[in-house]
Amino acid sequence: MTTSIPLQAAAQANALLQRIRSGDTRALARAISVVEDAAPEATSLLAACYPYTGSALRIGLTGAPGAGKSTLVDQLARHLRAAEQTVGVVAVDPTSPYTGGAILGDRIRMNGHYADAGIFIRSMATRGFLGGLAKTTAEVCMVMEASGRQQILIETVGVGQDEVDIVRLADITVVILVPGMGDDVQSLKAGLMEIADIFVINKSDREGADRVEREIRAMQSLAAHADAPVPAVVRTVGTTGQGIPALQQEIAQCAEALRSSGRLQQKRQAAWRSRLVEMLRQEMLRQLLAHGLSESELQAHAAAIAAHQENPYTLVPQLLASLLPARGQ
Amino acid sequence: MTTSIPLQAAAQANALLQRIRSGDTRALARAISVVEDAAPEATSLLAACYPYTGSALRIGLTGAPGAGKSTLVDQLARHLRAAEQTVGVVAVDPTSPYTGGAILGDRIRMNGHYADAGIFIRSMATRGFLGGLAKTTAEVCMVMEASGRQQILIETVGVGQDEVDIVRLADITVVILVPGMGDDVQSLKAGLMEIADIFVINKSDREGADRVEREIRAMQSLAAHADAPVPAVVRTVGTTGQGIPALQQEIAQCAEALRSSGRLQQKRQAAWRSRLVEMLRQEMLRQLLAHGLSESELQAHAAAIAAHQENPYTLVPQLLASLLPARGQ
Repeated sequence: MTTSIPLQAAAQANALLQRIRSGDTRALARAISVVEDAAPEATSLLAACYPYTGSALRIGLTGAPGAGKSTLVDQLARHLRAAEQTVGVVAVDPTSPYTGGAILGDRIRMNGHYADAGIFIRSMATRGFLGGLAKTTAEVCMVMEASGRQQILIETVGVGQDEVDIVRLADITVVILVPGMGDDVQSLKAGLMEIADIFVINKSDREGADRVEREIRAMQSLAAHADAPVPAVVRTVGTTGQGIPALQQEIAQCAEALRSSGRLQQKRQAAWRSRLVEMLRQEMLRQLLAHGLSESELQAHAAAIAAHQENPYTLVPQLLASLLPARGQ
Repeated sequence: MTTSIPLQAAAQANALLQRIRSGDTRALARAISVVEDAAPEATSLLAACYPYTGSALRIGLTGAPGAGKSTLVDQLARHLRAAEQTVGVVAVDPTSPYTGGAILGDRIRMNGHYADAGIFIRSMATRGFLGGLAKTTAEVCMVMEASGRQQILIETVGVGQDEVDIVRLADITVVILVPGMGDDVQSLKAGLMEIADIFVINKSDREGADRVEREIRAMQSLAAHADAPVPAVVRTVGTTGQGIPALQQEIAQCAEALRSSGRLQQKRQAAWRSRLVEMLRQEMLRQLLAHGLSESELQAHAAAIAAHQENPYTLVPQLLASLLPARGQ
């Protein structure tokens, strides 16, 4: 069994990492693709990237379709750049169509920043990631961080469980609402309300911003945890940039409070616990399929189950007992 | 290591199964909760249910919020009941708010069928299912099937990857569109277009139904697979029941074609291959956490990773090498 990363793969991963760290954005784009595709060299690349992660701030921004997330994220990125921060943006939109929209979107968005290597935007397609979208997003963030980006903005639509899982990876979660979108706060995805560190009321020049703020405050009084600080509410107009400096200031204050209270470390530990479990699951399965159970055996069992010749719930423990020697007890 | 289900658990599972099969809907509701909660007795219950599954038809119905899915599913259920078929409905809506909406919705919907034990509706919350929403939905369907339901309708919002995974579990996939909802066909979730067996244009008394049908046909000519039959397009008005008999007829024809061509068996084998992999992953992790790696060790590693004292990508293979004895090579 392979217990360490082969030397050659490690050397190649280090070569790619050096190019990324020298500011080569094409190398960065390629490295992200390696991770997204779960290519064979992904693990050695991530192992090489890991020592260069941990100091960037990861900011998750989520809201319903139409909340103006992209515009807000672009404005925030611009503002961070003006403050001499390097920025990476990971945009995840599972509701986007599959006709190449993500890549086209990158080009349109990159145009606004074309002369600036200090900002790097990557949209992620959302299909068929081995181990799930949240895991892949976390790994893409690591590669961006290893490239030296100081601020990582993770933009996602707040609709499915996947998105809640993605937002849980961030150090700070910003939930974006807009006035006049139906049930407003009530329509928020389960769980988002509880994990918001900052609320943004975007398009706040529209009628109804006061009502949204009152609703947020009312929900907060229900959902409040005694030990967590009350989230700030910031009003913005993404199209004009109004309120962006205030948002950036709230994010910086929130980051400082998380760091000084030790909660940042707690959050990151909790995120790593989940990722570690997922990595263990994935690696055990990989080893089982590589050394124990062939694809043709797997297919034969699936056929027997579909034909009702084998009960999957008795098969699984039997298979593992024969493939993995008894241990522990 | 436990390689078979303990006798007592099996006896209890069989007792519950007998009550379910005798038509006891309270027992059915309880059994579904056991599976949803991944309670300790879930595996023995599923093992007991499995022999009674395989003959029901599972029909997945998916579409954007506002496409009128619930109404359409209710009408279809009514129509199937009129044809002396027993029906189970599993409704999965990750966009629903978290204020108990699912349970309230069940009550409202059940009212229309209150005198009829031949139809059973279950809405699923969508948070934190161990092993994922698609797995849990598949297992809930198995319990419904074991209760003797001949037609299982799986209703889901077509927005996230989770929903595509859910729809892949169905024997037949019905994609529901409505006229006048923005980009119509272009806004469909990636992957749904390719797996649709039947398209429904609901609310087809509205203007624009012709345009939606033309768009479907245009997309089909791009996405067509040579070996798969061209999906039918059925127009319905859910609120009046118009087009429901035609939809039911298309579903029956589609089911017959799938059965006679052997494609039903292929589809189910492919679904079982995925589920088997997921079950193996889950069971290996369970065994590892039960007999190898304690929660406190897991937390200690997560803390060390978050503090940058341990590289997770080298840790995972090392951990497994020490916990699982070498095998194979």
